[in-house]
Amino acid sequence: MAFRLIPKEEKFFADFIALADRIVSGATLLEKMLANDPPAWEVAVEIKQVEEACDSVTHEIIQRLNRTFVTPIDREDIHALAKSLDDVMDAIDAAAGVVRRYRIHTLPYGTRELASLIWRSSMQVKVAVEALEKKAGVHDAAVEINRLENAADTVHDEALRRLFEHEKDAITLIKCKEMLDLLELATDACEDVANALESVVVKHG
Amino acid sequence: MAFRLIPKEEKFFADFIALADRIVSGATLLEKMLANDPPAWEVAVEIKQVEEACDSVTHEIIQRLNRTFVTPIDREDIHALAKSLDDVMDAIDAAAGVVRRYRIHTLPYGTRELASLIWRSSMQVKVAVEALEKKAGVHDAAVEINRLENAADTVHDEALRRLFEHEKDAITLIKCKEMLDLLELATDACEDVANALESVVVKHG
Amino acid sequence: MAFRLIPKEEKFFADFIALADRIVSGATLLEKMLANDPPAWEVAVEIKQVEEACDSVTHEIIQRLNRTFVTPIDREDIHALAKSLDDVMDAIDAAAGVVRRYRIHTLPYGTRELASLIWRSSMQVKVAVEALEKKAGVHDAAVEINRLENAADTVHDEALRRLFEHEKDAITLIKCKEMLDLLELATDACEDVANALESVVVKHG
Repeated sequence: MAFRLIPKEEKFFADFIALADRIVSGATLLEKMLANDPPAWEVAVEIKQVEEACDSVTHEIIQRLNRTFVTPIDREDIHALAKSLDDVMDAIDAAAGVVRRYRIHTLPYGTRELASLIWRSSMQVKVAVEALEKKAGVHDAAVEINRLENAADTVHDEALRRLFEHEKDAITLIKCKEMLDLLELATDACEDVANALESVVVKHG
Repeated sequence: MAFRLIPKEEKFFADFIALADRIVSGATLLEKMLANDPPAWEVAVEIKQVEEACDSVTHEIIQRLNRTFVTPIDREDIHALAKSLDDVMDAIDAAAGVVRRYRIHTLPYGTRELASLIWRSSMQVKVAVEALEKKAGVHDAAVEINRLENAADTVHDEALRRLFEHEKDAITLIKCKEMLDLLELATDACEDVANALESVVVKHG
Repeated sequence: MAFRLIPKEEKFFADFIALADRIVSGATLLEKMLANDPPAWEVAVEIKQVEEACDSVTHEIIQRLNRTFVTPIDREDIHALAKSLDDVMDAIDAAAGVVRRYRIHTLPYGTRELASLIWRSSMQVKVAVEALEKKAGVHDAAVEINRLENAADTVHDEALRRLFEHEKDAITLIKCKEMLDLLELATDACEDVANALESVVVKHG
């Protein structure tokens, strides 16, 4: 009979790491998709699959949470963390879906910068989530995620400014604006992850 | 002196059923409004009245929740359930309001399909909410709501693809896009209801 | 050694008042910015600074909440209140940012009416938050905030109706619509503040 070093409910940490890994995969695919003009539209299908895998893990986390009496971290924090991680992947998937749906051909200024910031942010999400169980190193990653979100905000604002200055076709403009807004939303969701993680650390500090 | 078989706080179940009934009314009116070209714009006024009735019930639920010490289901679940039911009706009302505000004359592909999916989803919401008190049958309805939301996602994506392909007037396109987005949002909100209901059932399973 | 009349955790009330004060400052700057055509675009920079100050206070509230065992009002209410106050300022900042980003020159019908409703709503938010500690007077301010939100809804709907009727340039229309939507969002967020405050009062009533 095996001796369990880790009580069963600690599986939450493994699930959060599984979610973070998938977010890094999604962000990597997004960068690849948007690397050239025209973007690799078909990659959106792969990103959708990663998003569906995230949905399943999130669903399992919530189900386990509802069945578990003693959780390693507060229930509300598990909920906020699962939701915010899921939101990151949803935003990445939605941005990719828009590029594919409208067959956007020429990516506007800011697209690749934002995709790169999302990827860097997703790597910090992974670092922070892995640091969670030992409650060390979360704060530094959270600070970096906040910094990346501010950088994304600035790029997004400048990207829209230039788009409205140069793009004279209103329909093209609508497509590009929707994509840029969703890319920025992904970095906002990373910030929500950082906030949820900081809550946990402060409570247990 | 009457003997109370049902403790007072069980009124929550009756309130949720009242909300679900109103959502079905709202979804039925929406289908009727959008049945023909041009849509029956004036029906939006009736839908707004249903939405205001939902607001009142939701407000009463929250007030009662704040005054009640022992609740039949977890406080956070009552809150999530009331909010998500209210969000369904808000999205239905917002979609109808947009059709009326812009006097949309010719409904784009996908509009009636989405209205039908919202109606079917609202019927499942009613089934699920009625099943809640006896905690049986909720899961099947929740699975069906999730299936309908996926179907709505596919219709919405295809509807926008076609809209951007065929509609050359940018202002008409903006109006139709806002309506299609709000219709899809209504099915998303139904999915949130399903998730909230599943949380309750798993905890008491 | 000083005798502490107010236990340390009561600092939450002072923080909420600090947030409300900043929201009034932000709303005052917004009205000033939008008073004439062309608007005073550079005021958006000042509004952004107020928004960043709000972010810091909100962050402190959440950190303190996570470190505090006994709170004067329910943890979930402190959280909801901090978040909704922060959302008001975010919406004000976003609306100002859009006016500046697009260098909107001629403000459409409804802009000044909405800015005025936001300012009046922010004043009631301040009244309500100051009334919180003594739990008297909150309800009247909440009712007034709800009334102002309904008024803003009506103005917003009429503003969009007129915009789509008169503005024939789709790109100008997109810019103005985004601004009007964000102004309306600020009054929605004030309503969330009112709801959060009413929850506290009902529980302690």
